[in-house]
Amino acid sequence: MNSEKQLTFGAGLWMFGQFVDRYATDAYGPPVGVLEAIDRAGQVGDLVALDINYPFDEGVTVDQIHTALERNRLRCYAITPASYSRKFQKGALTNPDSGLRSEAIELYKRAIPVAQKLGAKYVKFWPGQDGYDYPFQADYELLWRYSVEGVREVAGSAPEMQFGIECKFKEPRTHMFFSNVATTLLAIQSMEVDNVGIVFDSGHSFLAKETPAEAVQLAARHGRLTSVEVNDNWRDWDDDMAVGSVHLIETLEFLLALRTIGWNEVILLDQFPFREDPVVAARESIRTVRQLDALLDRLDLKALKAAQERQDALAAQRLVLDLFLNRS
Amino acid sequence: MNSEKQLTFGAGLWMFGQFVDRYATDAYGPPVGVLEAIDRAGQVGDLVALDINYPFDEGVTVDQIHTALERNRLRCYAITPASYSRKFQKGALTNPDSGLRSEAIELYKRAIPVAQKLGAKYVKFWPGQDGYDYPFQADYELLWRYSVEGVREVAGSAPEMQFGIECKFKEPRTHMFFSNVATTLLAIQSMEVDNVGIVFDSGHSFLAKETPAEAVQLAARHGRLTSVEVNDNWRDWDDDMAVGSVHLIETLEFLLALRTIGWNEVILLDQFPFREDPVVAARESIRTVRQLDALLDRLDLKALKAAQERQDALAAQRLVLDLFLNRS
Amino acid sequence: MNSEKQLTFGAGLWMFGQFVDRYATDAYGPPVGVLEAIDRAGQVGDLVALDINYPFDEGVTVDQIHTALERNRLRCYAITPASYSRKFQKGALTNPDSGLRSEAIELYKRAIPVAQKLGAKYVKFWPGQDGYDYPFQADYELLWRYSVEGVREVAGSAPEMQFGIECKFKEPRTHMFFSNVATTLLAIQSMEVDNVGIVFDSGHSFLAKETPAEAVQLAARHGRLTSVEVNDNWRDWDDDMAVGSVHLIETLEFLLALRTIGWNEVILLDQFPFREDPVVAARESIRTVRQLDALLDRLDLKALKAAQERQDALAAQRLVLDLFLNRS
Amino acid sequence: MNSEKQLTFGAGLWMFGQFVDRYATDAYGPPVGVLEAIDRAGQVGDLVALDINYPFDEGVTVDQIHTALERNRLRCYAITPASYSRKFQKGALTNPDSGLRSEAIELYKRAIPVAQKLGAKYVKFWPGQDGYDYPFQADYELLWRYSVEGVREVAGSAPEMQFGIECKFKEPRTHMFFSNVATTLLAIQSMEVDNVGIVFDSGHSFLAKETPAEAVQLAARHGRLTSVEVNDNWRDWDDDMAVGSVHLIETLEFLLALRTIGWNEVILLDQFPFREDPVVAARESIRTVRQLDALLDRLDLKALKAAQERQDALAAQRLVLDLFLNRS
Repeated sequence: MNSEKQLTFGAGLWMFGQFVDRYATDAYGPPVGVLEAIDRAGQVGDLVALDINYPFDEGVTVDQIHTALERNRLRCYAITPASYSRKFQKGALTNPDSGLRSEAIELYKRAIPVAQKLGAKYVKFWPGQDGYDYPFQADYELLWRYSVEGVREVAGSAPEMQFGIECKFKEPRTHMFFSNVATTLLAIQSMEVDNVGIVFDSGHSFLAKETPAEAVQLAARHGRLTSVEVNDNWRDWDDDMAVGSVHLIETLEFLLALRTIGWNEVILLDQFPFREDPVVAARESIRTVRQLDALLDRLDLKALKAAQERQDALAAQRLVLDLFLNRS
Repeated sequence: MNSEKQLTFGAGLWMFGQFVDRYATDAYGPPVGVLEAIDRAGQVGDLVALDINYPFDEGVTVDQIHTALERNRLRCYAITPASYSRKFQKGALTNPDSGLRSEAIELYKRAIPVAQKLGAKYVKFWPGQDGYDYPFQADYELLWRYSVEGVREVAGSAPEMQFGIECKFKEPRTHMFFSNVATTLLAIQSMEVDNVGIVFDSGHSFLAKETPAEAVQLAARHGRLTSVEVNDNWRDWDDDMAVGSVHLIETLEFLLALRTIGWNEVILLDQFPFREDPVVAARESIRTVRQLDALLDRLDLKALKAAQERQDALAAQRLVLDLFLNRS
Repeated sequence: MNSEKQLTFGAGLWMFGQFVDRYATDAYGPPVGVLEAIDRAGQVGDLVALDINYPFDEGVTVDQIHTALERNRLRCYAITPASYSRKFQKGALTNPDSGLRSEAIELYKRAIPVAQKLGAKYVKFWPGQDGYDYPFQADYELLWRYSVEGVREVAGSAPEMQFGIECKFKEPRTHMFFSNVATTLLAIQSMEVDNVGIVFDSGHSFLAKETPAEAVQLAARHGRLTSVEVNDNWRDWDDDMAVGSVHLIETLEFLLALRTIGWNEVILLDQFPFREDPVVAARESIRTVRQLDALLDRLDLKALKAAQERQDALAAQRLVLDLFLNRS
Repeated sequence: MNSEKQLTFGAGLWMFGQFVDRYATDAYGPPVGVLEAIDRAGQVGDLVALDINYPFDEGVTVDQIHTALERNRLRCYAITPASYSRKFQKGALTNPDSGLRSEAIELYKRAIPVAQKLGAKYVKFWPGQDGYDYPFQADYELLWRYSVEGVREVAGSAPEMQFGIECKFKEPRTHMFFSNVATTLLAIQSMEVDNVGIVFDSGHSFLAKETPAEAVQLAARHGRLTSVEVNDNWRDWDDDMAVGSVHLIETLEFLLALRTIGWNEVILLDQFPFREDPVVAARESIRTVRQLDALLDRLDLKALKAAQERQDALAAQRLVLDLFLNRS
């Protein structure tokens, strides 16, 4: 198993941008350009990679992005096409308008050479508008077909590029089509392509009432784990809070699962620090993950395995709680 | 009990404005000025009153608002000061900065003469930023004190004006201080003022896992029901959907409760039709409420009372389900 | 599509037995023997089939069951082995004790000839104790393996018999392994057997925050829909209430989905009428389902399809709400 | 503030009894008599007090209880009348049958001299059957009246005895009348008696989506905190798990709140270790609470207060997370 010192961190670039919601329509802070956001990410000091939204701000070139990354010693880990803006409010790949479905596919395809040029590991599908809000609003068979066919067309157009679907239960739609890991795996199977996996977000897993440690292993077991994002929430909304702030024990269990499956790539922060300094928020989450991972070095895995083999909840819990609580 | 033909409807003016969320940062539609929004509300054709955010758009006068209302045969029912914008992101009445707490109080006070001039029934506290997001973030005693003292100061400054607190469990904070009806009633008691009540939102009640019919009677029993707003949601977020779209039976029960307590004032729509035409959304909700209310005219109240007196769930349900389902 | 008059109903026999929970340990009523329960089911008058727990009461023979069914004009639709009793409290197929895992497999296998003799369509896996309660309690890989291998062994031993897994999110464990439709479909794929499907329970679907209409189509699309059970709940527990009592609109949508996939077999009631007469509870649910199904005969499917093809939520809702509400 | 060494623990005696649920109707273990259960409680070694269900097993006298307590160095802390058994399935104080309401009142009254004889601090109302399951089933005004009048009559009959209402959102009814702290405080106010307070259960608080630290202070602020019970759950059911097993951070915050309000009485364990040894389960929870409380001795309260005064979530979290995670 990998050990603490090997952990490396990235972040979604949006974390360093401007936040808005439906109440504070004047936003939680001033506008932040994409290059400025990269510089902010650089200030964290312990990030090595970014997931960058595409298209960039009007007039910003790939070269400028590249330069900004270089000067901050960051690399581009992923590109996330903005398939969730006004235009796609009724869906990107599943939009009822075939013209808009085509536009969405084109948007994803246009992102591919950019991702290649920036050396990104994958292009991300973030299908937040693909779903439905009301009972009877959607033809679920059609949603399934559009989702599968849309991803297949994009992924099939660039077999050498990796793609990742970030599944989530809800928001901005009250119901998203790619709602959880298992449903997304079934859809990926139907696509019959090799280069599509899952972008696993621990917060989305909490929201879907999954156990993150179990769900990430499900994705890995099927050979479809493309990326790992972390944050925390209150389990009925994607609050994108600092890591470990609510579900400390389950986050530890999740990090143990990452060791179990041999995850040795970047761990991405995906937070929305509406009322906090994003640089501090990133540093705090990284500190927490490193501390949790260091606890794992002290966890008696043999004893844990023995407890699990007899499903001895109290013994397993004691091993874990003593990590947190025992000062002797 | 009042009967169907007496129902009158109002709406929160925001329903006819521009919607934005953290994903579609380019908004779900173009900007809408306050006067244009009033004209849109007028197009519904069956609205008589509005809850209007304050301050108005830059440069718009009270007289202009008045004229716009007149030409649409609408009246101002309530004024909602914008105590939830960027400035107040860490709270209005409970902001940790005493200067901002004073600003919030001043904002509320400034709204009072405007409300009076426009003939509003009440000034609304919508304390969406007053609360906390993280464990250990807040001193709950301080939140209590600031909330109680802040409302008391505003309400005490204008004893002839009515005020209403719109309680909600969460959003935009992950936890709001005025979280549900019972907590808000306790806080109102501590204020020791006569002119503060509750703005009851059926959707917030669903979200708080209250039974709306029970909770609205709780507010009324304590003599603190100031206003009634309606919408629907999936019960773990304030989705502000069209009335009856998810909880049809409980909405009927809620409307029966309104008859029981003798509510004969305006019923306000509070919806966020992100992907729908707001005029149509308003008309559909009004149609649904009128239809539900018409069903109540056919409900055998004596039989229902008898079933409830023996807590006969199946008999009570049958009376209600046959209203919806029996075509003979 | 099938029409109303073809609907036929069955029930889980437990619905007519004795209920107990952790508080009313003296039970909600007197003991009911299996033969008496069958007679009660017969009193409903509109049931044609039963899902019967196995083993039967001490001393009761298959022939006695057969006779009791005959005299009530009922047939055995399914056999549900009691893999959830004290012995299996830490799991049946996933019990940490290999001896108990074998016992569970033997129990399932012993049920097969009984099911055959009674002409049952399928043997049901109801793996309520297979899962975990605490973080860190379980090795999820082991749960997966035991679950897949256990079902495979049972199903492989009788290729001519159909089996169905009834998935559920929680209860009695706080987390069940076969938690929802998608996860169970993935596990079934891994079994590589043809005779295992899903027993779809609409209440479990509500509990898992699935949309039942969507989830049942997912199972059908994969050719794995073995059986359909119906009831209702408040969405955070498996309350097993009368059909349509909470989620009337989604239940209608679910019944439409059953038409869409061409389900023309028995619909099973799965209720726990703790405080109600089970015969009345069954009749009421059947009446509600028949009424809802009759509404579907009046639903303008062409208009609905058109609304769905443009994802017009308000138009789709209006078609549906007018079914419930429009008396003209 | 009190410090760790002063913490003392009690337990609900049911924790050492036999558990049953609706699936494992043969129970999770053999029957346990009340005297045996007391001996089991004695084995924990670190319990000083018990909450004991009443009536006792057939034939067991108060003297026998007293002797059993003595030999285990335990005292009776509370008496909980069994107002939740079959007879009271539709409610105790709110039962639609006036005869059963009287019986419930008599049961509570009969418990008073027993509580006095055993030196109990309070008699507990555990109104688990008082509520409703279905929409339209209950007349909420009647529930309110029966609840208030029933408690008032019992409490008024013994002004020198303390009473405590254990509120809970649901189970065994899908909705309980005394659903949360705030609602119960309002009802207690209406009773106009001095000797009724709240039995605060941290797990019920999690279930009600309260923040336990905030809710316990709400009860204390109103002078109505009678007793404190602790456990944990997954927040959508009262799982009665070991303390800290899911919500470690919020449990720490809750223990800090107990210090803040100066709680220096017994802390009661309320667990249902269905699949665990109850003696071990009790010891583990006590160990966890003592460890958490020891962490509080190391918490920089001045720094926490400063962080809270500026609502600095990340600073407050860091103080707390470092308690758990910082090994230097």
